[in-house]
Amino acid sequence: MKNRVLVVGSVAFDSVENSHGKAERVLGGAASYSSISASYFAAPSIVAVVGTDFTAKDKAPFKKCGVDISGLEVKDGKTFHWGGSYDKDLKNATTHFTDLNVFQDFNPVLSEEQKNAKAVFLANIDPELQLSVLKQVKNPKLVACDTMNYWISSRKEALLKVLKKTDLFFLNEAEARQLTGEYNLITAGKKILKLGAKHVIIKLGPNGSMLVSKLGIVQFPPFVLEHVYDTTGAGDTFGGGATGYLASLRKWDTLAAIKRAMMIGNVMASFTIESFSVKRLASIKNGEIEKRLKEYTSMLRF
Amino acid sequence: MKNRVLVVGSVAFDSVENSHGKAERVLGGAASYSSISASYFAAPSIVAVVGTDFTAKDKAPFKKCGVDISGLEVKDGKTFHWGGSYDKDLKNATTHFTDLNVFQDFNPVLSEEQKNAKAVFLANIDPELQLSVLKQVKNPKLVACDTMNYWISSRKEALLKVLKKTDLFFLNEAEARQLTGEYNLITAGKKILKLGAKHVIIKLGPNGSMLVSKLGIVQFPPFVLEHVYDTTGAGDTFGGGATGYLASLRKWDTLAAIKRAMMIGNVMASFTIESFSVKRLASIKNGEIEKRLKEYTSMLRF
Repeated sequence: MKNRVLVVGSVAFDSVENSHGKAERVLGGAASYSSISASYFAAPSIVAVVGTDFTAKDKAPFKKCGVDISGLEVKDGKTFHWGGSYDKDLKNATTHFTDLNVFQDFNPVLSEEQKNAKAVFLANIDPELQLSVLKQVKNPKLVACDTMNYWISSRKEALLKVLKKTDLFFLNEAEARQLTGEYNLITAGKKILKLGAKHVIIKLGPNGSMLVSKLGIVQFPPFVLEHVYDTTGAGDTFGGGATGYLASLRKWDTLAAIKRAMMIGNVMASFTIESFSVKRLASIKNGEIEKRLKEYTSMLRF
Repeated sequence: MKNRVLVVGSVAFDSVENSHGKAERVLGGAASYSSISASYFAAPSIVAVVGTDFTAKDKAPFKKCGVDISGLEVKDGKTFHWGGSYDKDLKNATTHFTDLNVFQDFNPVLSEEQKNAKAVFLANIDPELQLSVLKQVKNPKLVACDTMNYWISSRKEALLKVLKKTDLFFLNEAEARQLTGEYNLITAGKKILKLGAKHVIIKLGPNGSMLVSKLGIVQFPPFVLEHVYDTTGAGDTFGGGATGYLASLRKWDTLAAIKRAMMIGNVMASFTIESFSVKRLASIKNGEIEKRLKEYTSMLRF
């Protein structure tokens, strides 16, 4: 039986445009990408909120992947809706609108079962809400947390409190620099360790990821892919996959385990960027993950 | 005995300023960095030109590393002098001046010994000169070539001729995109293969390097370093080290050999960025390269 991992964050609709085309009101949100990614290694259970416009069709990818969505609250109103477009580099998105809708008053309340979760992935939401979740969880063995530039500037105090309770902290290059004022990513990572996070994983987008931890400093390339379709959700997929994998282990806090988790995160993200929304991620066939993991290790082998 | 590798390019003075300090008229130039880097694996022989202001002190690093500088022509006039400063990211340089001086009329003439070179590193110079060198070399087994944005825009035709004779083509991300009009680096690399280069190595700066070749597609992280002092010459060091290593092999054109060459290039560059000029690069002690290679492979091992 797979280990339970609690995932708290946004479930949303995305309207995305890039050089490949356009997707209107497709399933998005950090909790969607991260829970579906984690589902290949653990049993994710979601805490999130959607509106009455969220249909059975929108729930289908979760059900297909065995994500427990009994904690998906349905509120009167509309689901969080983000709209944006990407440059031809597929890296930098311009936000056209952020309609928070029912997400605005999101107040995560955990079920008894969820309170006993041994692993938690706090996807990118207000750190005050992340703290509220951590207060409800009884005795987690692994707390992973993601964030974004907005919270670093507007909720720094709360974020610093979260950091002190975080085992695995995910953020991107720009955010690591913003949070610490350090340009060098190793220096920045070490500062974040001093703030209380046990292990810091800096997401490098098309350049992979970097671990800064007392266990070691590691930089990994991405799983290289020629045909990138849409990068929305790649970071959430990375974090969710890495956390799901670690949640499946009896002992997760070793350098070998975290390196493998990064490698898995890189490989999971390579599926997400092959389609709009979670289409590709939610339909990975038996053996496909193992095949890419093999290709990845073979690329790095001398 | 080490195998001879011919290195053609600039030997210059650099005046560099960055957040760590300032260096005035220190040894620089692509041929300097690449030949000294190659010297740890092969016996480099330089073809370059300097002015009468180039003193014995400036020659010392070459001699120390066993670089043959009998082909270093001394002309009446001043040595090529570049001045620039770096942002705090140590990545983007602003050029303050480029005094070509005697380099303006550089016309590489090879000695009989150099004409028999089995390996050639054409550092970043006018592709017309690279072609002239290739005409003089009799039967090279390995031709490596580097270039820059300026030649891609102003000497594209000549550069395309060079490419057809190039085994190993080095360029950075921006240059790969400029040359091919493709954003995706794998797609760009494949286009360059079609232009005639046998293997393309795209330098990713602080993110390592990528190989695009019929033998395979590989992305490697850099040798991670917290204390970066100055990045001038890192790319030349990478190319020279990789080429020097390949020149030392009986059979260089295998995926395993090229992967190891990239790894060596990454490690050699990590020395260059630890000081201004070639100070650190030219004074690597016995065992230091092996130590970093070990750390690097251990980082990538699962």
